[in-house]
Amino acid sequence: MNKPTLQTLVIFGGSGDLTFRKLLPAVYNLYASGKFEQNLQVVAVGRRDMDSQAYRELADKWIREQSRFKTDDTLLRQVSERISYYRLDLQAEAAYQGLARLLRQEHADSRLIFYYAVSPSLFESITKGVISAGLQDASVILEKPFGSDLENARQLNGVLEAAFGRDKVYHIDHYLGKEMVRNILAVRFHNAIFSGIWNYQHIDNIQITAAEEDGVGTRGGYYDQSGAFRDMVQNHLFQVLSVLALDEPGDMDNGGLQKAQLQVLKSLHPIDPWDISHYLVMGQYDGYQSEPKVRPDSQTATYAALKVLLDTPRWQGVPFYIRTGKKLDRRETEIIIEFKRTGPDDLPDLLVIKVQPDEGIYLRFNVKTPGEQGSLLPVHMDYCQSCNLRNYQNTPEAYERLLNACIQGDHSMFSQWDQIEASWQFANQILQAWTEAGQPLAGYAPGSSGPDEAKRLLTPEQREWLKVDVTLE
Amino acid sequence: MNKPTLQTLVIFGGSGDLTFRKLLPAVYNLYASGKFEQNLQVVAVGRRDMDSQAYRELADKWIREQSRFKTDDTLLRQVSERISYYRLDLQAEAAYQGLARLLRQEHADSRLIFYYAVSPSLFESITKGVISAGLQDASVILEKPFGSDLENARQLNGVLEAAFGRDKVYHIDHYLGKEMVRNILAVRFHNAIFSGIWNYQHIDNIQITAAEEDGVGTRGGYYDQSGAFRDMVQNHLFQVLSVLALDEPGDMDNGGLQKAQLQVLKSLHPIDPWDISHYLVMGQYDGYQSEPKVRPDSQTATYAALKVLLDTPRWQGVPFYIRTGKKLDRRETEIIIEFKRTGPDDLPDLLVIKVQPDEGIYLRFNVKTPGEQGSLLPVHMDYCQSCNLRNYQNTPEAYERLLNACIQGDHSMFSQWDQIEASWQFANQILQAWTEAGQPLAGYAPGSSGPDEAKRLLTPEQREWLKVDVTLE
Repeated sequence: MNKPTLQTLVIFGGSGDLTFRKLLPAVYNLYASGKFEQNLQVVAVGRRDMDSQAYRELADKWIREQSRFKTDDTLLRQVSERISYYRLDLQAEAAYQGLARLLRQEHADSRLIFYYAVSPSLFESITKGVISAGLQDASVILEKPFGSDLENARQLNGVLEAAFGRDKVYHIDHYLGKEMVRNILAVRFHNAIFSGIWNYQHIDNIQITAAEEDGVGTRGGYYDQSGAFRDMVQNHLFQVLSVLALDEPGDMDNGGLQKAQLQVLKSLHPIDPWDISHYLVMGQYDGYQSEPKVRPDSQTATYAALKVLLDTPRWQGVPFYIRTGKKLDRRETEIIIEFKRTGPDDLPDLLVIKVQPDEGIYLRFNVKTPGEQGSLLPVHMDYCQSCNLRNYQNTPEAYERLLNACIQGDHSMFSQWDQIEASWQFANQILQAWTEAGQPLAGYAPGSSGPDEAKRLLTPEQREWLKVDVTLE
Repeated sequence: MNKPTLQTLVIFGGSGDLTFRKLLPAVYNLYASGKFEQNLQVVAVGRRDMDSQAYRELADKWIREQSRFKTDDTLLRQVSERISYYRLDLQAEAAYQGLARLLRQEHADSRLIFYYAVSPSLFESITKGVISAGLQDASVILEKPFGSDLENARQLNGVLEAAFGRDKVYHIDHYLGKEMVRNILAVRFHNAIFSGIWNYQHIDNIQITAAEEDGVGTRGGYYDQSGAFRDMVQNHLFQVLSVLALDEPGDMDNGGLQKAQLQVLKSLHPIDPWDISHYLVMGQYDGYQSEPKVRPDSQTATYAALKVLLDTPRWQGVPFYIRTGKKLDRRETEIIIEFKRTGPDDLPDLLVIKVQPDEGIYLRFNVKTPGEQGSLLPVHMDYCQSCNLRNYQNTPEAYERLLNACIQGDHSMFSQWDQIEASWQFANQILQAWTEAGQPLAGYAPGSSGPDEAKRLLTPEQREWLKVDVTLE
């Protein structure tokens, strides 16, 4: 076997929350699960003034707190020694020369991976700095959202592809790394009971919900620029939609999966601007304008609910309802597939894919009411993946899986530019229609289930937002 | 409302096991659940010499032991008072005059229901006795098996229909009264997730197993005349098969269900006599010939395994494997629906309908192995109806449900002569082929899973008998 390639992960935004909470613990976890030998070094790049020693102490603290493994002191020391800190003003182009010198001196034989763990508004500055320092022979991992609209995303992509080459650019969508999102493909294509009914003939509608209990917290500055639609719908939830709705790829590898996802995004049925209020509801929780770093007159949506249709033979007439928001009554991401009724008085079957925090599958179906003739009883059965601690304690988290995939050069867990472009195309159109129609933001109380107005997407067609109140067992 | 009709249930075989263990407790349970007011009287007719008082004491003891309710002394006394005993030699035609006198004196305003809770060899004698005493204005409930072959069943049916009229003859098949057998129709036709895949395109094969741990016990005399095929397959398991396989009736009532079941039985693919050994395996447990009342050279089968195919568009090429036997390693009746594989390395999905002693539904399906890419893990979820004690403690037992249905004049839970005739037609053909081919009985050890030879029905097509080792939760 070849000697494993040395890799150096350069994290821009190295003193930020994402790095401490997710990325450094992911690096530790990958070491702990034996994925790397001693071939990964980390250079955290940030604006804060500290030396590597102080940084490592901080990193240790966060890793101990966030790692899915009980930390081992010896291993933690070994991992920690491979982390260094470099102070840099990310917007000062000339300063990147110093970073380049460091990398050439201390990481000469390494393959470079840049991780942009920063606000998207800095993507361009960093890229310019990297180019000016001649560091383009690298892979680059980009956090979402990518761009703030179609134009801006296209322009940014042009810069990145010119600098690094298309196949070196990895767009993070950590939803694609989630166990149960990856599992959708297995459930759909490796079960005769599900593969045969995954279409408009058997499915009435599909609902995707990503509810958060938290508000914007300390991220008000970033969030107020993007809002719920750009932060969640345009990327994560459209990616989930594309995995749920795709036609079976002939070949899952070699880009087949991505091509099938792209097909879904391209088949999103255009929404008539005059009719936008029947397809999109946006809201803002009461008190949002007083959150730190949020503009006091902000019209940014913290809630979005959307109805889309797909122009494909498989999904003719099947609405996909998507909703997400902050400060809601629960923290839960789940997909509910509502099947068609078999009779006027039957409750429809439901297949629920629980994505987080619980991971699992729940099936509601009808049986005869025990002891009676002619009356039906809805019952359920479920498979709780996250409960199954004995066997699957410690499944890798999304960031760990994604980091590892990039290091392996595996693109299948990342969204691709084509998909992002198609998402933006659709998103742009409806956001523009929304603005032009002068639609008001709906207010909602923190801790509620969101604005009442969201019901108007379903009421005319006699449907309801579904909520399955269960704890998987 | 009309005054409820008085009914008198005359049980021939009133001092037998079935009466004490099942019928009298069923009568008590029906009173206890408020199904009857004071309108059902019972006349137990038997050969044993005792008076009604002694009989009631016996009945009380059995009811206390067997009732699904905690017995209430007052109610038990009330029920008990409605039970009387009449001693009669069932084969002495003239003696029925005495019974007729009793019924005319003490049950003059009652609708009569005769229950033949005796060996089928007595059906004809009883019917003759009843006719000679002029008691034909009655309904009659017949225990299975009905007849010992096609000829004999036809002849017997002719006598009964001539005496009572076709719509007054109720053929008991207590399997049709079982909760989970009734439930098959709800599961199949009131769930979009199941109704769409119930056909040859999605199902690979269906296995029906009725395993008993007990031997023939005290029933050796009867059993040695019938054997596993006539005792279980020809009636119960063919009825289960017909419910599993039927096409959706336009109207479940008004005989629509029975017509659809009949269609299944008529579409049983004829088995080539030359090839009988690939379709039928019969066995006898070691030691059977030493059981009480069994002939020491008996060639009666205590085990039967059968493969059948159906000539219908829905089931083209789908084998149904049926097996039953005594003295096996478990007591369990279950139906396993094995779906088609979705790939060469996938395990097939399984839907298991547990009929007894557990009642419930179990679904095995594939997910992605947590934490890994590209590998599948079979997992399961289940719905345990019999565990769900809080809500459905005390679901009525089969006999209770059947008795009540007959009293209500509801034929839907009984097998009909047409069905019995079609079953016998098919059974006759293969039993005859079996005999003519001089096929040997396969021996098997008590407590085993039956004769190894049963595998030969599946091995050539690379299938296996399935056993799902689970306790529903």
